[in-house]
Amino acid sequence: MSFYIERLAVVGVGLIGGSFARALREAGVVGSIVGIGRSMANLEQALALGIIDEVSQNPAEGVAGADMVFVSVPVCSVIPTIRQMAGSLGRGCVVTDGGSVKAEIVSQCEALMPEGCHFVGGHPIAGTEHSGAAASFATLYQGRRCIITPTVRTDQDALDKVTQAWCLTGAEVCLMEAGRHDRIFAEISHLPHAVAYALVHAVGSADVEGENVLSYTAGGFRDFTRIASSDPVMWRDIALMNRKPLLASIDGFSASLAELRRRIEAGDSAGLADFFTTAKNFRDGIL
Amino acid sequence: MSFYIERLAVVGVGLIGGSFARALREAGVVGSIVGIGRSMANLEQALALGIIDEVSQNPAEGVAGADMVFVSVPVCSVIPTIRQMAGSLGRGCVVTDGGSVKAEIVSQCEALMPEGCHFVGGHPIAGTEHSGAAASFATLYQGRRCIITPTVRTDQDALDKVTQAWCLTGAEVCLMEAGRHDRIFAEISHLPHAVAYALVHAVGSADVEGENVLSYTAGGFRDFTRIASSDPVMWRDIALMNRKPLLASIDGFSASLAELRRRIEAGDSAGLADFFTTAKNFRDGIL
Repeated sequence: MSFYIERLAVVGVGLIGGSFARALREAGVVGSIVGIGRSMANLEQALALGIIDEVSQNPAEGVAGADMVFVSVPVCSVIPTIRQMAGSLGRGCVVTDGGSVKAEIVSQCEALMPEGCHFVGGHPIAGTEHSGAAASFATLYQGRRCIITPTVRTDQDALDKVTQAWCLTGAEVCLMEAGRHDRIFAEISHLPHAVAYALVHAVGSADVEGENVLSYTAGGFRDFTRIASSDPVMWRDIALMNRKPLLASIDGFSASLAELRRRIEAGDSAGLADFFTTAKNFRDGIL
Repeated sequence: MSFYIERLAVVGVGLIGGSFARALREAGVVGSIVGIGRSMANLEQALALGIIDEVSQNPAEGVAGADMVFVSVPVCSVIPTIRQMAGSLGRGCVVTDGGSVKAEIVSQCEALMPEGCHFVGGHPIAGTEHSGAAASFATLYQGRRCIITPTVRTDQDALDKVTQAWCLTGAEVCLMEAGRHDRIFAEISHLPHAVAYALVHAVGSADVEGENVLSYTAGGFRDFTRIASSDPVMWRDIALMNRKPLLASIDGFSASLAELRRRIEAGDSAGLADFFTTAKNFRDGIL
């Protein structure tokens, strides 16, 4: 049987959800698409742009009759949103999400599924600095990685369906255990954001003889701290959702910084050169 | 009397020294330029490119007869280089440098000057990712800031000469006490580099169930950590030369990160939103 979604429900028709809808529509594998969200202005724009065919402001109503539901709402809203709609899911419906933290979402959402419905967690590694339906585009996921986090309880057909959908968007699908996903992203994404926010917080608060030093910053500082301009609410939610792995990553970083500080204080010339060279080699190795 | 340098000696004809020479030559305010350095290949290239008129591998010989000397060598070599040449400086010669740490250089180099010669510390805030004479260009300093760090002992004519030279390169000159310069640059430049190196060190060493997580990093991580690809030896030298202010900046940052960690651990939703928003506002305020 070839892959086809009769009715796709996208909850949260922003950059992520809108691009998913556009990509599957372009691939010709979807019948109709209902867009579900709180902002009627955004939904109407999505409708006008042809991203979706119908709109609903009520998840429980909107998902009725859908054979696939993609939940692309802020990470802290995924579980409440799925709880709200679970009772309205039709038999055989596959529910997936795009949240950037997975363990808690997967364990709770699996448990929320009614008989005959299946949840599969996902995290597409893609984005731009823009948001909203108008910012979405069909090729957002092409060549980007999408991590899918099945468990021992995951239904194989549901997993195949979610995997195929992401492959059809042009993404490279990577299966991974949810806890492992969260530990990896704590290191490579959540920690750098925490560090950038803490750095800007510290430098912005620093007072050199009554003068704010930020006025002296140049391009280098601005580039380095660009990620501290991300949405504070989104990062609050990620920090709360991925608390334990993020705390462990912060502790690992703090130990690394403490070691660097020790070498600076000791005037350990060879130790400093070694520390900086090791880091540079790690960095240059990922280019 | 109008500004003119009969004989300019540039010690270290790289991006910084070469661009200084080119800019003053283009401004038509210099008679001859002697380039001094260790690498004959680089000096010959500078000669071939018309950046300099003569070469010398010996600072003590090269500076003879110069009325201005610009020392643009690695920050830890500025003091030894000036010590080596001090006895050969002609009466009235003005010596300046381009080192990115100032207090120690200024206090030691002032003391090294023979009778009738004057030292004025400087720090042009400019650069590219390239180095060497061939990477230099006359407009490197246009519109960029150059910080000059006079002391109570600085000769006014020498200060005027150095200020005028930098103005003629197109830089905006800013006078500042050397210690203040070092505290400001510890915050806005040296701390971010230390943090970036420590972050890459931590993430590169992190082990999630036997796997190196760096393979999962995407553009965001690479952009954020670009400065950890800088020259390890240069940053070793800066860390050693600006030890005290940098340690204080690291401590301020560590306190900021510890506060963020505390809010994450406590699940303090409002406190996290406030922390991230404050940082974002600082960041957006410098754009």
